[in-house]
Amino acid sequence: MNTRQRMQALRRSSVGPIDVANESGIAEVLEHPACVISSGQICEHSLVDRDLNRLLFDYERTVRSRFTRIVEVLKRISMHQHDKDFTERAQQLAHEQLGFDLPSKMFEDAWVCGLDLSALHSHCIFSVLKSCVDNARTEQAGWRQRIPLDENFLRSCGYHTVDISPCSDGRLQGMSPYVLRILPGPNVQVKAYAGALFDIEADVCDWAQREVERLSGAMVDGERLDYLKIAVYHFSSSSHNGDGCAAHGSNDRQATEAALGRLDELREAIDRSFGIGAAPDVLLIGVDTDLDALRIHLPDAYGDVNSHRYIETVKIYRETLGLSAEVARARVAEIIADVENTGGWGQGQGRMNDGMRRLVSALAEANLSQIEYVIKHHTGRYATIGHDEECIVAGDAVRSLKLRNLFYFAHLDTIEEGAPDMDVGIDIFAKLNVAHGLPVPVLVHFEYDARIPESRARAVERGRRVRDAIEARYPDLVAKGLLNCAIAVSERAGDERCDFVADEVAANH
Amino acid sequence: MNTRQRMQALRRSSVGPIDVANESGIAEVLEHPACVISSGQICEHSLVDRDLNRLLFDYERTVRSRFTRIVEVLKRISMHQHDKDFTERAQQLAHEQLGFDLPSKMFEDAWVCGLDLSALHSHCIFSVLKSCVDNARTEQAGWRQRIPLDENFLRSCGYHTVDISPCSDGRLQGMSPYVLRILPGPNVQVKAYAGALFDIEADVCDWAQREVERLSGAMVDGERLDYLKIAVYHFSSSSHNGDGCAAHGSNDRQATEAALGRLDELREAIDRSFGIGAAPDVLLIGVDTDLDALRIHLPDAYGDVNSHRYIETVKIYRETLGLSAEVARARVAEIIADVENTGGWGQGQGRMNDGMRRLVSALAEANLSQIEYVIKHHTGRYATIGHDEECIVAGDAVRSLKLRNLFYFAHLDTIEEGAPDMDVGIDIFAKLNVAHGLPVPVLVHFEYDARIPESRARAVERGRRVRDAIEARYPDLVAKGLLNCAIAVSERAGDERCDFVADEVAANH
Repeated sequence: MNTRQRMQALRRSSVGPIDVANESGIAEVLEHPACVISSGQICEHSLVDRDLNRLLFDYERTVRSRFTRIVEVLKRISMHQHDKDFTERAQQLAHEQLGFDLPSKMFEDAWVCGLDLSALHSHCIFSVLKSCVDNARTEQAGWRQRIPLDENFLRSCGYHTVDISPCSDGRLQGMSPYVLRILPGPNVQVKAYAGALFDIEADVCDWAQREVERLSGAMVDGERLDYLKIAVYHFSSSSHNGDGCAAHGSNDRQATEAALGRLDELREAIDRSFGIGAAPDVLLIGVDTDLDALRIHLPDAYGDVNSHRYIETVKIYRETLGLSAEVARARVAEIIADVENTGGWGQGQGRMNDGMRRLVSALAEANLSQIEYVIKHHTGRYATIGHDEECIVAGDAVRSLKLRNLFYFAHLDTIEEGAPDMDVGIDIFAKLNVAHGLPVPVLVHFEYDARIPESRARAVERGRRVRDAIEARYPDLVAKGLLNCAIAVSERAGDERCDFVADEVAANH
Repeated sequence: MNTRQRMQALRRSSVGPIDVANESGIAEVLEHPACVISSGQICEHSLVDRDLNRLLFDYERTVRSRFTRIVEVLKRISMHQHDKDFTERAQQLAHEQLGFDLPSKMFEDAWVCGLDLSALHSHCIFSVLKSCVDNARTEQAGWRQRIPLDENFLRSCGYHTVDISPCSDGRLQGMSPYVLRILPGPNVQVKAYAGALFDIEADVCDWAQREVERLSGAMVDGERLDYLKIAVYHFSSSSHNGDGCAAHGSNDRQATEAALGRLDELREAIDRSFGIGAAPDVLLIGVDTDLDALRIHLPDAYGDVNSHRYIETVKIYRETLGLSAEVARARVAEIIADVENTGGWGQGQGRMNDGMRRLVSALAEANLSQIEYVIKHHTGRYATIGHDEECIVAGDAVRSLKLRNLFYFAHLDTIEEGAPDMDVGIDIFAKLNVAHGLPVPVLVHFEYDARIPESRARAVERGRRVRDAIEARYPDLVAKGLLNCAIAVSERAGDERCDFVADEVAANH
């Protein structure tokens, strides 16, 4: 089996500053823009929370290793498939190495047609996802307590809800706790769309439902709080034309303008429907997925954002490295004030509101920790700057799963509307998996509200409908056994459960 | 051509009390239950607005005759298709008889393959729909002024918005002005679903958006007003097992319980998400589509509805015929009070709130006019008690089109979610049209908000997406040229326009 793991191992062997082909075709070493790692400079910034970084890295390693073991275990199982005590041996291996049993019926016919490693691979991916969800409370407990931008902090900035739409790209799926250091919780919604092209009508609906809670007095301090919509585009500083946003043809400018366009449309839609001033605050953020560094676009006094008026956290890290925490923090404030006052290309008008400034300052400072995280715990730039996802998640976000390049996430209610997002995901997996004989595992996941009767049944029904629509859209993959869908549902406000709808994979394929 | 018109003419020739096969297979005459028409009894009730009935009938005749002429004109055009001056003659006929030109290119190749009467038929249906919309303001002006349950009246009952979900069945598509005598306007939304099985999540979203307007103070008198959801099921008193609700296998009990179930689910969903008491008022209504007579289920003091506690307007008409307006009205109040006090099968608890009683009384009284309308202007029972629609409308309602059996209406955002509703419609048209060689005309129609930039473009995009999904769902019909879709959009708050998206039908087929 020409496994993906081999490729990963190869890719991961190139550590340190990576080689980039320049225009003349001669490879040059791209230095890290925040800190000259190779010169021996000590990359330890006074505003970085190194304890939090260690906790986050422990979590990353734990989750990652579960997935890494899948291919190892399947290879060993494959080798033994003609042994006499094969089934027992396979189950023992799975149990010891992966922590779960494999469905026995998958082994029963192995002596005739050979083992269906393709189905086993998807089964393992889903089971490992489930383990991660089941263990999230324990495994995330450490870092959850230290994440700086928690619900209270966001409320102190004036926001009862933060609705984040990153690109569906797997490299952005660890964004909230890692890159933004925002604590995932019921007040934080992540709805990813290819190219960050979120759905205006769906957003108006989500906003309206929170607004009813706020206006009806059901929300504590609702009268002074607002809704915040964040759109997150991305680019690759070492590979602008290759590893940027696939949905925008790796054109950084287009990715920026498109996300900004949606934010403006959302504000206008709400202002014009519900009265000027009703629109939520918005924020535009760019992520350099090589470094997890941010561009934070500064809103002006009217809440308007433009593509040119932003701060860059790599520059902030570089400029403030070596300063004491107090001095560095003052310098960050100055850098923000400078950009606000010059107004970028003269388009910004005046300074943002105090709550927004508090948030932007905190995001900038918190991201210094993530830049250093990538320097210390990875290779400055990630060894794998491109796609490396394990599966696709379609539907609602699995709230307790947050990790870079773990999955491609298409937020959708129907494939009819979400087809462009799914298509980009399937294209990515054509290269990552299908090209190596591995199927595309798609977890169709929806949330329900346990308080509402029939809500779970409707979520399951939607899951089945979306699963059917996915299979109908990619009949060639289905025919070749290269698309494996599973359906799971989670309780919205309760503990994350990611309950797999029984026997869906087995029963239907 | 084995046209549908011939069938209609045949069916329409049976006026007066209709023959119904009873269980022993022997035909018996079913008397009108409100008024013994054949005995010479004068069916003129003191609470009936006969002037309004005349205005409504003028409108019905005007609209109906436009559609009736289509087949006549196409037959005549067909006869002349090999004449020398064919194109001019055809255009002249269309212009004189239908009031619009036909696309010349449809005639150009007629000498080779014969005239594509199938495409011409759909084209004419869409053009006539458009004429009806364009003329609605003038042609509806008379009855619009006299309709009793207008926005002010509904507000006096305590409702800022009335959201009606009838079955998709064409026989219910004239419901708001005719059967309920509720004035169609921006405060009245009609969202039809097969079997009245409306979408809970979509309804919560619509409710929340109106609730934001109410709570934010943007709505006049919002603090004392509520949202009202009405579900409307239907049955046929002369043909319980054949001409009831197709979505419920013509099982009246199932149709009633299913609609009631959805209302209860909606209330629970909102109460449990936004706090007890947040849920809108609900009302359950049944329509006997033979007579346009109502069953109005009376809510109790808690707003709860059950399937057994209702008043019937045929009985009210019969019991109060011959009484003076004042006495009749007092008797209606007594009948309502009786049902409230006995509580049907003892499940009702206490009397409904005053606003709801005002509304229920007005609906009951107004429906007496519609019962008499069917007696005077039709045949007591409609001559065509079954399906007789001209086309399918999928998407948003065309607000200015309201007439019994004019179209089958599936309210939907996507075919993925709305497939059951479309399937029922296509089944109906398989018998009505396809069996006679006529295609199914489907108007895909969405509304946009002119105040919101890109809203129209998004409505057009959704229209195209839904059109494509319809064509993908019924490939056999498409292959045989038996499915013709057109796309149109209308401005939500503005004048009804039903703008056809240019050349969609012609360009894509």
